[in-house]
Amino acid sequence: MLSKVKAVVPVMSAKGGVGKTLVAVLTALHAARMGRRVGLLDLDVTSPSAHIALGVDPQKLQPEERDGVVPPDVAGVKFMTVAFYTWDKPTPLRGPAVDDAIREVLAVTNWGELDLLVVDTPPGLRDEALDVLEYLPRPRVLAVATPSRLARAGVERLLAILEEQGLERYIVENMAIGAVGLEELAEKYHARYLGRIRYDPGVEEALGSPEKLLDTDMAKDVEQIAKKLLEELGL
Amino acid sequence: MLSKVKAVVPVMSAKGGVGKTLVAVLTALHAARMGRRVGLLDLDVTSPSAHIALGVDPQKLQPEERDGVVPPDVAGVKFMTVAFYTWDKPTPLRGPAVDDAIREVLAVTNWGELDLLVVDTPPGLRDEALDVLEYLPRPRVLAVATPSRLARAGVERLLAILEEQGLERYIVENMAIGAVGLEELAEKYHARYLGRIRYDPGVEEALGSPEKLLDTDMAKDVEQIAKKLLEELGL
Repeated sequence: MLSKVKAVVPVMSAKGGVGKTLVAVLTALHAARMGRRVGLLDLDVTSPSAHIALGVDPQKLQPEERDGVVPPDVAGVKFMTVAFYTWDKPTPLRGPAVDDAIREVLAVTNWGELDLLVVDTPPGLRDEALDVLEYLPRPRVLAVATPSRLARAGVERLLAILEEQGLERYIVENMAIGAVGLEELAEKYHARYLGRIRYDPGVEEALGSPEKLLDTDMAKDVEQIAKKLLEELGL
Repeated sequence: MLSKVKAVVPVMSAKGGVGKTLVAVLTALHAARMGRRVGLLDLDVTSPSAHIALGVDPQKLQPEERDGVVPPDVAGVKFMTVAFYTWDKPTPLRGPAVDDAIREVLAVTNWGELDLLVVDTPPGLRDEALDVLEYLPRPRVLAVATPSRLARAGVERLLAILEEQGLERYIVENMAIGAVGLEELAEKYHARYLGRIRYDPGVEEALGSPEKLLDTDMAKDVEQIAKKLLEELGL
């Protein structure tokens, strides 16, 4: 189902709450605005929220079925989420059920030809977050991290794992509020540092509207990062 | 080991990155400053960071052993963390190993007589986060949430689970940046809303020093919350 996708980019984070979903959503939106054929897949089974950012009601927007499930177009991006159908269960999925849901979504979704597929993943370094890497062909990982010292050990662990697995790896610094940089950490693990995204309280009001989201300061910062990423990916 | 602890308060969040650790640390520090006998237990095996906030080097500060492991005093608080010994593994713990580490820490730590034990927990609604509730006697949960709409479904799920289990439940709103309140959500699940903590970028610089942490705007907000909490707990 992913054979005609040129670049698959899982967006990962060592812990939740670092803005991974918004970085994934904005990267996809920008790439589409720059003329690429883009897909966005929300595989964060534990807490899918890309549809909230995009203003998509999973009850109302049901994908068609044609040689598999066809992701509907949302603001120029082909969008699929575990929140469609019954994958977004009201009670938390545990263990193997999480894995099953992820593999099912990947098996049934018909992406067609894409330049870029951005994949929002479960946060953390647990089984399902790392297993996603095994289910995707040639994953080129975009790690999202905040500069907080409370989060540093996790960021290092994530980069170490990606290096260990020999995966192409990029890192962006979100909610940046000062000069403390993750550049040396990126260098240490031979990850490509793509830049910094400033803390933007204006984002909350823009949630639910791709147009408003694209108009935020955060979006301007992600635009620069998306450009660099597309270049690195050869798209 | 917890029989002489008057109140056990697990601090929980539906997702990571909402400030759960800092809320736990500051609540413990304030309660100690207000004259209570306080313990702080970091059970966030996936990403322990209370010791980073407190400026404790797990290699250097080793607990004594006397009828079990005696938590060392840090800024007036008896402090134990999975980061001591080998519980804080460099590679992420998976599945049953997480559970084992948590049960081991609980089994060996000798808290003595305490008014309050604050417990930092693994974020999310996964097995280990919820299992912690079963290992603690009469847990009175302090949920930490941010007002973001991206996080709302998770907050609701957490409150629903706590209500379903009939547990005493409190909620604080962290990184509050506007008027959007979690009060109606608290009411919906009969959880006690203790207040709001403003977003404070100054906290990052204070990490590692209990004195500096207590001097931040965030600490002032948590102080009010800690006072209410102690009252609610009858301490």
